[in-house]
Amino acid sequence: MAKKKNVTFDDIAKYTNFSKTTISRYFNNPDSLTLENQRIISDALEKLNYKENKVARILASGKTEFVGIIIPDLYHHFYSEILDHILSTYETFGYKFLVFIGNENEETERRYIRELLAYKIEGLIILSHTIPSEDLSKLPIPIVTIEREDEYVCSVNTDNYMGGYLAASLLSRRKCDILIHINTPTSEKIPAYGRLQAFHDYCRDHDLKHEIMIRELGNTYETAQPPLSDILEHLDTACRGMRKGIFLSSDTHANVLLNLLMRKYGRLPEDYLLIGFDNSPISREAVLSISTMGQQTDQLAFEAVSLLVDQMNEQKKRQPAPLDKPIHKVIPPVFFRRETTEK
Amino acid sequence: MAKKKNVTFDDIAKYTNFSKTTISRYFNNPDSLTLENQRIISDALEKLNYKENKVARILASGKTEFVGIIIPDLYHHFYSEILDHILSTYETFGYKFLVFIGNENEETERRYIRELLAYKIEGLIILSHTIPSEDLSKLPIPIVTIEREDEYVCSVNTDNYMGGYLAASLLSRRKCDILIHINTPTSEKIPAYGRLQAFHDYCRDHDLKHEIMIRELGNTYETAQPPLSDILEHLDTACRGMRKGIFLSSDTHANVLLNLLMRKYGRLPEDYLLIGFDNSPISREAVLSISTMGQQTDQLAFEAVSLLVDQMNEQKKRQPAPLDKPIHKVIPPVFFRRETTEK
Repeated sequence: MAKKKNVTFDDIAKYTNFSKTTISRYFNNPDSLTLENQRIISDALEKLNYKENKVARILASGKTEFVGIIIPDLYHHFYSEILDHILSTYETFGYKFLVFIGNENEETERRYIRELLAYKIEGLIILSHTIPSEDLSKLPIPIVTIEREDEYVCSVNTDNYMGGYLAASLLSRRKCDILIHINTPTSEKIPAYGRLQAFHDYCRDHDLKHEIMIRELGNTYETAQPPLSDILEHLDTACRGMRKGIFLSSDTHANVLLNLLMRKYGRLPEDYLLIGFDNSPISREAVLSISTMGQQTDQLAFEAVSLLVDQMNEQKKRQPAPLDKPIHKVIPPVFFRRETTEK
Repeated sequence: MAKKKNVTFDDIAKYTNFSKTTISRYFNNPDSLTLENQRIISDALEKLNYKENKVARILASGKTEFVGIIIPDLYHHFYSEILDHILSTYETFGYKFLVFIGNENEETERRYIRELLAYKIEGLIILSHTIPSEDLSKLPIPIVTIEREDEYVCSVNTDNYMGGYLAASLLSRRKCDILIHINTPTSEKIPAYGRLQAFHDYCRDHDLKHEIMIRELGNTYETAQPPLSDILEHLDTACRGMRKGIFLSSDTHANVLLNLLMRKYGRLPEDYLLIGFDNSPISREAVLSISTMGQQTDQLAFEAVSLLVDQMNEQKKRQPAPLDKPIHKVIPPVFFRRETTEK
């Protein structure tokens, strides 16, 4: 790990007989040079074994090409998948990502944002829920959120309403006697509320027997077990003999209910149809594959970065035009038909 | 998003009546000032609404406080969990992380490393397998790897050998007639090979009837299904009536076998005992909870960053002392006893 002397603009200028200004133009505005001169300098860089110092370039150009990300955790597969896809956009847009895990702590997340701003990030992608979008909109850089409250900022969300509507319609076509939606208490302000709203609207518009069961299910397999166990007891008696079409708010919850049924009956009884949400790995790896309304995490991530890049480019103009109002992009969900709706 | 004028060292110097040199010392070596003067400057920063420009500081100090991470993907929970824990060490060590997803492509990963070096990262954590450690050892910054080939670089790994040994010993104590290890072809150079080696050693040392079945299982639930289905057919006939203690190379594979058994028998037959590896979420969310040899991802991540920080600090000394040889830290696995070994 011997420290090598860095090659400077001076060295490159001497080697090529160009001025330092020309060398600087090569890095900051290469098209202002002829192709021939670009080639001469690029050959020289190779010969001199030039290691680019982007930190120095940042200071010269003001462009860090850094984007900050605040994500609640990587434990939930939705978040790790989105992050995977966001990081992969480097190949398309060239932005590098500084990632912070917020752990649902508002004060921590505000501190992380200050730290990110000190590193001159050009834009920020937020997946965590703690800081109101009104506050986020006051930050001095472009912001895009994904699947969270987004009234005052640009966002990319799944079309949750379409998801809930399609789930209800599918269960109805499978000749269920009662349609049931199981969810955890959800604020009307977050996109996921659309799942519940649409399910309710579909059943009302089509005059279908239905029930919406809101219980504190939590986010994990463990927290959802006791309430879903109670719900199963209730359904087994109150809806005996009826064909039950159940739409759950997530694949994690659908898997809990499926496992409770398998453990009780050794199979999925024919009067139970289950649909989850997310197309997370557990929906494929469960004991029976779970039908699910899939979020297109690749598109959510790509559109979020793309929307952010548009605004970051706007900021680089001499007179950036502010947005009239936030842009909200919506990505349709995709239904995956699997074993839990086959009977 | 109006562009505000930044507060400069000049402004702070004028406001406090200190010289610019004193202000600079406040940022780069605060302890060289009296506490009283530190307080005066810190009050001034607050009054002037000073926004720190860390990029400028980097150029002055040469310390970016950036660490690069190359990770194969975030689809596998082991990786997303490790990354979650690495990012959380910011609270302890203050380093910020620039993260790249390698997707098992060596050329891509070499390009990412060049890009990271251009941003003057101070250290690098590698979880991907593509670049030989001998090449990594030649990079001009400290490197730490996690759970991969590590002959020439510092590393933190799970004690895979202990994991395999404990799994065999546990199955033996549960009075199994035959001990079976199922794994995918594994290079002797990677830490995970210890699982297989130890299982074999334990059975040989204790003169136990055993079989080691190496099949191309792949990394996913889907790829593992056909070969494990074949293995189940084989065991159901060749080992009929025997109590089979099966140690699988990952929880994903254990879950595939468990689901095949559940679908065939409606329950886990009493002559099948299963142990997985990783303590990944699927081991808790499977139809029966899967006994598993858990990797302590929090400790793996913390020790990796800690080892890297030691070396990055060494590099900041006027005469850094090179390491005689790479340091390899080993974290013991933890056994989670669950339903698949209860019968």
